[in-house]
Amino acid sequence: MTQIINKPKDAVSQVLNGVAFIHQDKLERLKNTGIIKIKENKTDQVALISGGGSGHEPAHFGYVGDGMLSASVSGPIFIPPKAAEILKAIHSVATEKGVLLIIKNFEKDVTNFLEAKELAVAEGIKVEHIIVNDDCSIEEGSYKKRRRGVAGTILVHKILGAAAKEGKSLAELKILGEEVVASMNTLGVALASGKTIGSEKPVFSLEKNEISFGIGIHGESGYRSEPFFSSEYLANELINKLLTQYSNHHQYPFALMINGLGGTTVMEQYIFANDVKRLLDLEGINIVFQKSGNFMTSTNMAGISLTFLEIKEKVWLNYLNEITNAFAW
Amino acid sequence: MTQIINKPKDAVSQVLNGVAFIHQDKLERLKNTGIIKIKENKTDQVALISGGGSGHEPAHFGYVGDGMLSASVSGPIFIPPKAAEILKAIHSVATEKGVLLIIKNFEKDVTNFLEAKELAVAEGIKVEHIIVNDDCSIEEGSYKKRRRGVAGTILVHKILGAAAKEGKSLAELKILGEEVVASMNTLGVALASGKTIGSEKPVFSLEKNEISFGIGIHGESGYRSEPFFSSEYLANELINKLLTQYSNHHQYPFALMINGLGGTTVMEQYIFANDVKRLLDLEGINIVFQKSGNFMTSTNMAGISLTFLEIKEKVWLNYLNEITNAFAW
Repeated sequence: MTQIINKPKDAVSQVLNGVAFIHQDKLERLKNTGIIKIKENKTDQVALISGGGSGHEPAHFGYVGDGMLSASVSGPIFIPPKAAEILKAIHSVATEKGVLLIIKNFEKDVTNFLEAKELAVAEGIKVEHIIVNDDCSIEEGSYKKRRRGVAGTILVHKILGAAAKEGKSLAELKILGEEVVASMNTLGVALASGKTIGSEKPVFSLEKNEISFGIGIHGESGYRSEPFFSSEYLANELINKLLTQYSNHHQYPFALMINGLGGTTVMEQYIFANDVKRLLDLEGINIVFQKSGNFMTSTNMAGISLTFLEIKEKVWLNYLNEITNAFAW
Repeated sequence: MTQIINKPKDAVSQVLNGVAFIHQDKLERLKNTGIIKIKENKTDQVALISGGGSGHEPAHFGYVGDGMLSASVSGPIFIPPKAAEILKAIHSVATEKGVLLIIKNFEKDVTNFLEAKELAVAEGIKVEHIIVNDDCSIEEGSYKKRRRGVAGTILVHKILGAAAKEGKSLAELKILGEEVVASMNTLGVALASGKTIGSEKPVFSLEKNEISFGIGIHGESGYRSEPFFSSEYLANELINKLLTQYSNHHQYPFALMINGLGGTTVMEQYIFANDVKRLLDLEGINIVFQKSGNFMTSTNMAGISLTFLEIKEKVWLNYLNEITNAFAW
């Protein structure tokens, strides 16, 4: 399929210039970098930074704004930004209260972000990090848990962003972030591969009418492929798998996020949402927060993910409901 | 491509239930209808209603909220709602200040909305309407102007919604709406057809690497097909065509909206936005408002549209910038 691009090698840089243009009232790009930041730094709160490879838009630049991230760092497509670039982002928004890095659990992302943290700490900047690992699918063959960081990362941005704005310390935010991550699980399904910018080839391949459970946001293979039956069947499968992650799923209320992976229409997302609601009602699950949209995509992959977060403290729900001007929330 | 649906005949109804679930804090569905409305009616302002066939999500239910529409009416896919259904929507939100119908200029939409208006007026309800016809492409063959209502309709929702909230009368809103519509032009391009829900067939067909200018949001054929060169070339073509619609395009500043048609990635939208900005800067055009996203789609069609609105009164810009809680703005 034809793509609206110029030279593929310029794509990420042009995307970031486009973001800086459209959202010029509140965001800016640091020239010649993958960094999008708030225009007016907040000096009185911990600054949050997240990022990763491109191809997951609107993640993460769409979550930069008052009450969420102070900056995002975008690398090349599916490749995390380098430590030097992350360090620049830290320099651009660091405050006396410190900087918290929110890292998706992929090996190279973790390596580069931690390298940047080490460099910044050596300069005397207060930096902490949390690693988001909400993916509860398992590796095909090895049966190892994957625990990658996927769509739930956006809920972490939101909760920590609101808490940072409220004035929480760096240490408090790290503890809060780790508690939220430990209470969160995401499971995704793919219906068809997308194509990355400048590429003619699909990222992976599926048979017609076949879907793949547990597929990764970079097209990492899923744990099971099977024919597609219906949205309701799919919702049932994902809900059952997610609930096994909670020892007593009637103890706390839940927040849920339905995330389109890029090629799934709004109609499909709401049809799926309707099935999720009916099935959770039948299970007697108490949903106190719900959100649906394209929050963390994988180029134009057709597919959807479902994230559950056990709301262990009432204040987490307040943080989710606080107003932000981040444009993709 | 597999779609996340159940029975195709239930799709629209399930979508609306999903919307009512996800946005339950502010929206509700009127049972067994295509109507999504604000939960708490505003009694002290003119109520705005829009709608049309489904397949253009998040239009129009995504624009129901404080400061935009009071209700939306969704028909079957690509088929406008019936007059009786539109009348129900009028009943559900009508106030003493009246009801304004915002209609996209498609023959059947206009017929059904005006029939509903007549029925409501006969009941003593104050109802006016405006017809949005921002599409400035021309019919292939006949060279007639099409003037359908497309993505610019969302800017009309926003401006009139803010003006209604401010307390403008029905007559004032009608005049304002007509002035805005007369100052607005949209041109779209398709790169690949989408498939409607439950359908295996593309809505139209294009050769590989071919794009079609002026294609309609229901796949109506465009006025010219040609090979795709680059985002910049495409931006140049659309800008030039749009500027011919304004006799002196340095007289007033412009608002612009870039609208993804459903299958175009966020990356592509921002790459295109960056090209639009650079070209408009070269032309010395003064842009005072800009927005990019999927506002009025055509299922998962790959393509983009560009809307220009001449800001003839400063207050139009204020209305665009007013806060709304409509989820898709």
